[in-house]
Amino acid sequence: MPKFVDAVKRVVIGRALPSEGLQETLLPKRLALPIFASDPLSSVAYATQEILLVLTLGGLAYLYLASWVAIAVVALMAVVVLSYRQVVRAYPSGGGSYEVVATNLGPSAGLVVAASLLVDYVMTVAVSVASGVDNIISALPALNEYRTVMAVVFVALLAAVNLRGVRESGRVFAAPTYLFIAGVLLMCATGFIRWMLGDAPVAESAAYGIHADPGHDNLAGFALLMLALRAFSSGCTALTGVEAISNGVPAFRKPKSKNAASTMAAMGIIAVVMFSGITALAMIAKVHITENTCDLTGVAGDCATTPQRTVIAQLAAAIFGGDHSVGFFFIQAATALVLVLAANTAFNGFPLLSSILAQHRYLPRQLHTRGDRLAFSNGIVALAVVAGGLLWAFHASVTNLIHLYILGVFTSFTLSQTGMVRHWNRTLSTETDPALRRRHHTARAINGLGALVTGLVLVIVLATKFTQGAYLAVIAAVLLWLMMRGIRRHYDNTAAELAITDVSDQAVLPARVHGIVLVSKVHKPTLRALAYARATRPDTLEALTVAVDRDEANALQEQWDAYGINVPIKTLESPYREVTRPVVEYVRAVNRTSPRDVVSVFIPEYVVGHWWENLLHNQSALWLKSRLLFTPGVMVISVPWQLTSSERKGYRPAGRAAGAVRRGEPAWTNNHPDAEKADAEKADGEKADASPGPGPS
Amino acid sequence: MPKFVDAVKRVVIGRALPSEGLQETLLPKRLALPIFASDPLSSVAYATQEILLVLTLGGLAYLYLASWVAIAVVALMAVVVLSYRQVVRAYPSGGGSYEVVATNLGPSAGLVVAASLLVDYVMTVAVSVASGVDNIISALPALNEYRTVMAVVFVALLAAVNLRGVRESGRVFAAPTYLFIAGVLLMCATGFIRWMLGDAPVAESAAYGIHADPGHDNLAGFALLMLALRAFSSGCTALTGVEAISNGVPAFRKPKSKNAASTMAAMGIIAVVMFSGITALAMIAKVHITENTCDLTGVAGDCATTPQRTVIAQLAAAIFGGDHSVGFFFIQAATALVLVLAANTAFNGFPLLSSILAQHRYLPRQLHTRGDRLAFSNGIVALAVVAGGLLWAFHASVTNLIHLYILGVFTSFTLSQTGMVRHWNRTLSTETDPALRRRHHTARAINGLGALVTGLVLVIVLATKFTQGAYLAVIAAVLLWLMMRGIRRHYDNTAAELAITDVSDQAVLPARVHGIVLVSKVHKPTLRALAYARATRPDTLEALTVAVDRDEANALQEQWDAYGINVPIKTLESPYREVTRPVVEYVRAVNRTSPRDVVSVFIPEYVVGHWWENLLHNQSALWLKSRLLFTPGVMVISVPWQLTSSERKGYRPAGRAAGAVRRGEPAWTNNHPDAEKADAEKADGEKADASPGPGPS
Repeated sequence: MPKFVDAVKRVVIGRALPSEGLQETLLPKRLALPIFASDPLSSVAYATQEILLVLTLGGLAYLYLASWVAIAVVALMAVVVLSYRQVVRAYPSGGGSYEVVATNLGPSAGLVVAASLLVDYVMTVAVSVASGVDNIISALPALNEYRTVMAVVFVALLAAVNLRGVRESGRVFAAPTYLFIAGVLLMCATGFIRWMLGDAPVAESAAYGIHADPGHDNLAGFALLMLALRAFSSGCTALTGVEAISNGVPAFRKPKSKNAASTMAAMGIIAVVMFSGITALAMIAKVHITENTCDLTGVAGDCATTPQRTVIAQLAAAIFGGDHSVGFFFIQAATALVLVLAANTAFNGFPLLSSILAQHRYLPRQLHTRGDRLAFSNGIVALAVVAGGLLWAFHASVTNLIHLYILGVFTSFTLSQTGMVRHWNRTLSTETDPALRRRHHTARAINGLGALVTGLVLVIVLATKFTQGAYLAVIAAVLLWLMMRGIRRHYDNTAAELAITDVSDQAVLPARVHGIVLVSKVHKPTLRALAYARATRPDTLEALTVAVDRDEANALQEQWDAYGINVPIKTLESPYREVTRPVVEYVRAVNRTSPRDVVSVFIPEYVVGHWWENLLHNQSALWLKSRLLFTPGVMVISVPWQLTSSERKGYRPAGRAAGAVRRGEPAWTNNHPDAEKADAEKADGEKADASPGPGPS
Repeated sequence: MPKFVDAVKRVVIGRALPSEGLQETLLPKRLALPIFASDPLSSVAYATQEILLVLTLGGLAYLYLASWVAIAVVALMAVVVLSYRQVVRAYPSGGGSYEVVATNLGPSAGLVVAASLLVDYVMTVAVSVASGVDNIISALPALNEYRTVMAVVFVALLAAVNLRGVRESGRVFAAPTYLFIAGVLLMCATGFIRWMLGDAPVAESAAYGIHADPGHDNLAGFALLMLALRAFSSGCTALTGVEAISNGVPAFRKPKSKNAASTMAAMGIIAVVMFSGITALAMIAKVHITENTCDLTGVAGDCATTPQRTVIAQLAAAIFGGDHSVGFFFIQAATALVLVLAANTAFNGFPLLSSILAQHRYLPRQLHTRGDRLAFSNGIVALAVVAGGLLWAFHASVTNLIHLYILGVFTSFTLSQTGMVRHWNRTLSTETDPALRRRHHTARAINGLGALVTGLVLVIVLATKFTQGAYLAVIAAVLLWLMMRGIRRHYDNTAAELAITDVSDQAVLPARVHGIVLVSKVHKPTLRALAYARATRPDTLEALTVAVDRDEANALQEQWDAYGINVPIKTLESPYREVTRPVVEYVRAVNRTSPRDVVSVFIPEYVVGHWWENLLHNQSALWLKSRLLFTPGVMVISVPWQLTSSERKGYRPAGRAAGAVRRGEPAWTNNHPDAEKADAEKADGEKADASPGPGPS
């Protein structure tokens, strides 16, 4: 079994890498951009769509709001990118928002950011993969019924790629991200040129009627504002993942901060251009989109059976000449690929952040352990499992998942920008160089603006999304926050308890050692346990058995006498046929009588070669061991007996190694009469020698 | 957690019973009949139906065959009951068919019977529960959609009742079985009286047309014979469970054999009367039944939406005046209850047989262990899990399940009767008393006839059922047979290997003991492990650590020197960040250098109070321990450190018990300057004392 598991592991993730290879995995900018920025870049594939979807709820008349919403999103993007360039420069260690907030606003606020980010990384995987699958289905509608399965398979593939290590995954990502950027820019350019030449593209849904919610017929004042704000909240998905670069600074080549800041600028510019282009073209081509496919057909009751196409698919079809054109398939392939791969941003960010949290003892230590390929394997697996589960539960629907999404992003934006303001205040209080002071003043202004704007957006998002599912994300983040505090408290208590205050106090030898050998049958493992127990020279030594079956217990006693084993045997009664409880109670009673002493419990154990053979031997030893470990002042000694079947797997049975081998044959063929006689004489001598009693003190 | 599990267990199965209570669970005949005979008695509820179902495939014209088939079944029942009365007398120990065949035809043939019976016990549970659910749905059609869930819940309830112990379950069963017998006899009597008075009952399906399979339009010769044989095979389900009494003889009150034989006779008579009555009335009332509900409505394409009623339900409705009459509901309630409870026959037989097989070392030992309530709990749970799984897989459909059923019954019938013939042959060869010889001759004739008849039926069943699902039962029985032989071989090999051939050979003390203390950090558990290791006086003692992280390893070395721990520490390199492999390889190398010696590996372990806290501490110790156990010549010593959180559950931390308590305060508050100084002086003394080296030999 273990060998088979190991072989599969090698095929999936490759051979183990030595720790010295760690330096090699640093990223040049041209690989860092697709790895860390594929999320914000690819989110243009659904941000416009979500804006239109919300506005359509008000009626087709309100689609004109889309341009204003888009402008607001672009402005927000600019503020956030500028703000985060300051973060990258000031905190190059990769803690990102978490480190900024923990340092400047205290560890509890830091944990709020950490919890929000962890939730959002999960949502990034779920939403990106779901949207990628949407775009595949837009090109190949027959795959609609496999939506959820496809999404889960993509998550598994991403996990496998990332388990192979960060640099290899970088290569996988570079090509599709660049192809996507090129494709979208080409599409936008073609679309605008056609529009300027008077041949504006027309979306397939341009003529569709949409049944507006009657309540929205004549929106004005507050209702209109709310509609715009809800559309804006949805459009803010374009900003998710912007902080990924700030968390990934240590993975950049040197100079890390500078490279990270320029990568962030490049990402911001590309994202803004693509988002504006797609939104403008969607309005030019009159793309209509709604949650309910029945609306789109224009005739009530006549619902379309094929799934609705994504905005980007409708645009590509309209601009490149239909849904059988090469351009359409190229755009869909690149979009689907980059979206599925965008989830990779989270597969880089989540394990890194959780490893930092584990290092700070807020999460289990295992998340800080690097796997065979130097990636934080446990974090990768955890992310894949949770995101896969979410996709399964929400049937891989972008619209359902997206409400859970951006709350965490803006929580961490707001807190980290506030933290940065505090950081500059502190720096300014000690800095004297006027040039640097001026630069810090500018940075503080930028981060102050960032805090204000993102805080405002956070309030808007909370107000418009909370009841639509965002409350789930809030609950998850709160639970995560409580859990992390609990874990930290546990680790702190443990460390305090284990810290050495006084070497001599713990290093002192126990007053006396009581040896107890557990016996169920008189066979070789028992004799060996007795011999080893004698070799540890305990002050007293006795054998202990439990009388589950009266007849067996009597037979054991007779055999014990017949073999002349020179150790007293004690039989515990067990009217309820239990084994563990009588033994634990007896041992505890011994310990209570002389609490300064130590009780050594020797347990003869079978070791079998095949896992299923374990089912054939009583599991009571395992259970007994775990219970004895809870009893103070008790040491548990396993005296293993390797059954020959384990030999087939390359282990020698201990019976040969320790006992029989020195006579050149296995113990159970040793039946030559002379040999037996000689052994019997020898045994007599041994027994006298090994009689238990107070050892030398 | 364990406390909660324990509380649930007490509620479900009651308080634990002491072993002395075993005698109390013997059964009087009036309880033994419903417990062991509820299966053959209740099978009259579906045997007739299955006969009609098969004949209907040929067309309504062939329903007249039902009376001939029923006569054949009744004759077969008489032969089998007479044969088994001989078995009960000759083999009163409860091995039943298995024991008879193993004794007379050899252990391999015995295992064939055992495998067949185990499979059939599972099928008894599945078919009985499915049929019981069918009868509930006949009365309350709205429950049709919960068919599978209901079946699985009934299996779980049966398991719970049986886990409480055999006598309590007997009381539960007595009432419904007797009510069922009374109800069916009353129904038959009423029906016949009405028929004789010229007011014959008419079934609701009497007028339904049935679309016969066109291929069967004019059956003659071989095809007609095959139809009759298939109907007969299905009708043989009435015989299932007859052997249950022979397997349950030890549960009878004394005189066991005599009581069992009379119970068997009573069962046979009651079953024959009920089966004949129901079949005759079904023909009188013209009950029509088919697998396809569409056929019953008489109009092709117009399928009935309510499920088809069982034969017994149709009869009850026809005889007692409609499906709202008290009589109808009484019969349905009694039938459903007795069918669900009939599965109890298997819940008595399966654990008993598997316990005997476990005693003979053909099955894992756990199946021979009596649970808290003196029942063979593991067998009960295993049966419930497998039968529940089958019901789930086959959607609790009687017709689908029944094809898997009777093959095993007739395999064991045939083999056990053949074995009995051999038994009498052997007895006759030594017996001289003429009266006894005459009795044995009669018995041999009865068993010879039984072997012949059941062998013939076995061939018929194989020929008519194999392709319809019986092959699954054959495969299961063959796999079980192979598994049981494999388990026996494993236990035999183990016993041979562990048997003591020479006491002195194993009792000899090891030449030298090498102590190795595994160290990850310098903290209290480490110091305590070192102290305990010293107390066992090994010949050499060293500390061992693995350098997964270079910096941590250096820090450890510095601390080691700073605390002045007087044991040499060895650092193993681990370029691939593994812990287990370097340690195991090092230990193995030590063992290879001096194979006559023993290596004692001391592992400091944290013990936590809550199971989830285990997730917060590296699990490497557990894995390392299990790997070290495979290494010959190695003893593994767990030196536990109970964290205070475990104290809350009532355990004292070991640090207090063994070390600090004798000074009246916990170690980590021991920070009084004077106390520290005194400790430091003491520590110096200790260290000199405890320096490792060759111990006294």
